[in-house]
Amino acid sequence: MKYALLLSYDGTNYAGWQIQNNAQTVQACVEQAVWEAFQKRATVTASGRTDAGVHAAGQVCHFSLDVNVPGERMADALNAHLPEDIRVILSVEAPQEFDSNRSAKRKTYCYRFYLSSRNNPLKNRYSARVKGKIDFDKLQEAADLLKGEHDFKAYCASGSTAKTTVRTIYDIAIQRKTEHFSQDVAVYVTGNGFLYNMVRTIVGTMIWYAQGRISKEDIILSLSQGERERVGKTMPPHGLTLEEVDYGFQLF
Amino acid sequence: MKYALLLSYDGTNYAGWQIQNNAQTVQACVEQAVWEAFQKRATVTASGRTDAGVHAAGQVCHFSLDVNVPGERMADALNAHLPEDIRVILSVEAPQEFDSNRSAKRKTYCYRFYLSSRNNPLKNRYSARVKGKIDFDKLQEAADLLKGEHDFKAYCASGSTAKTTVRTIYDIAIQRKTEHFSQDVAVYVTGNGFLYNMVRTIVGTMIWYAQGRISKEDIILSLSQGERERVGKTMPPHGLTLEEVDYGFQLF
Repeated sequence: MKYALLLSYDGTNYAGWQIQNNAQTVQACVEQAVWEAFQKRATVTASGRTDAGVHAAGQVCHFSLDVNVPGERMADALNAHLPEDIRVILSVEAPQEFDSNRSAKRKTYCYRFYLSSRNNPLKNRYSARVKGKIDFDKLQEAADLLKGEHDFKAYCASGSTAKTTVRTIYDIAIQRKTEHFSQDVAVYVTGNGFLYNMVRTIVGTMIWYAQGRISKEDIILSLSQGERERVGKTMPPHGLTLEEVDYGFQLF
Repeated sequence: MKYALLLSYDGTNYAGWQIQNNAQTVQACVEQAVWEAFQKRATVTASGRTDAGVHAAGQVCHFSLDVNVPGERMADALNAHLPEDIRVILSVEAPQEFDSNRSAKRKTYCYRFYLSSRNNPLKNRYSARVKGKIDFDKLQEAADLLKGEHDFKAYCASGSTAKTTVRTIYDIAIQRKTEHFSQDVAVYVTGNGFLYNMVRTIVGTMIWYAQGRISKEDIILSLSQGERERVGKTMPPHGLTLEEVDYGFQLF
């Protein structure tokens, strides 16, 4: 049977999704949980890899397994063998043609940061601190420039093996609230796919533009010419959460 | 000089505010930081003790120290010697008559919980999971019953040394949002003072009433007769955050 899982994990203690030698990863934990629950091996594929330290509120993964467990029971079976910081929120039996990676139509990531001259221990786990002021009109202006179909070559880490670096950003939505003597900002980025480090570099670029450290021309040329020296710095991983994967139908 | 600090801490790894033998506490860390920064001993007093595992976004504390450091510089001086999960957000020179505990007029705590049949690793650090359904009209109804001046004897842990158990709750505000396949609830409780475990027991009682496990009469009698067996269970500490202490003037 083919199973799909909706996973939530705190990425703080993991070297990302994908299995690696000599580092604990989320994929390794899920495959280990399948083994411990059923004494059968499965390769578990996710909608996409999350990088080291990146969190997920709605990662989707799938695997095939020769067992007769009803789809909705798989969650508890695996949770019994997963560490506390990785949880299956929902599980279903998936259609045979379903592939959590290739079937994905849109993904939404959220990058969270707060503006403060000092660290805040209650915010530090899931958001990055940004020093200095931000012009929120310019933050929105940068978002508008980055929306649409572009070659995001300048926004991906070197060493990427992607065949094409063209991606479409459907939406970049900015939410703000003032709380505990600092401003909290959440940037929701929805697209048809993302390159390695792309969301973190998009948000870093938006912030640099909103702080007057790069110009509008820099952003335009970074997209049209792929000039990497025009973009802002890649933000740290702990502010990033994979929020939702959309398959064009209700999977869970 | 007398200094006042605005402190934020993640209480996960602490046995609460107050110094204890054989357990790490927030007060001990702040006093140790004063020692390391100035080689002088100070007794640091807070607006109130927070229990083991309880967080603070806006705890206020004060101490006197025979140094000539400007008020606003004290924050960085101490942060250099504090662990990462305790931060001074702001510091000022306080009036000689200021006492962070006795001068406090109102305090606001927030208790956070989420409704879900399964644990969510991204929510677990700062909110408690509640199983089963909640009638939100009844949650509000319970809040309205608990507001006002009452004898909260039934809502405090045994062994409390408070002279009187009468307290005034000025407001209980409920916020809800649906996120990541669960409902998130935040209950803000503002009062002139709180007994040991009082907020956690108030919220536990609100939840039991909203789940139909106790009646309106139970709440009324718990307040008028102090009958402890009428109240709900004390909620776990990690959902609780001391949000703000109000002195009736702007301290920071």
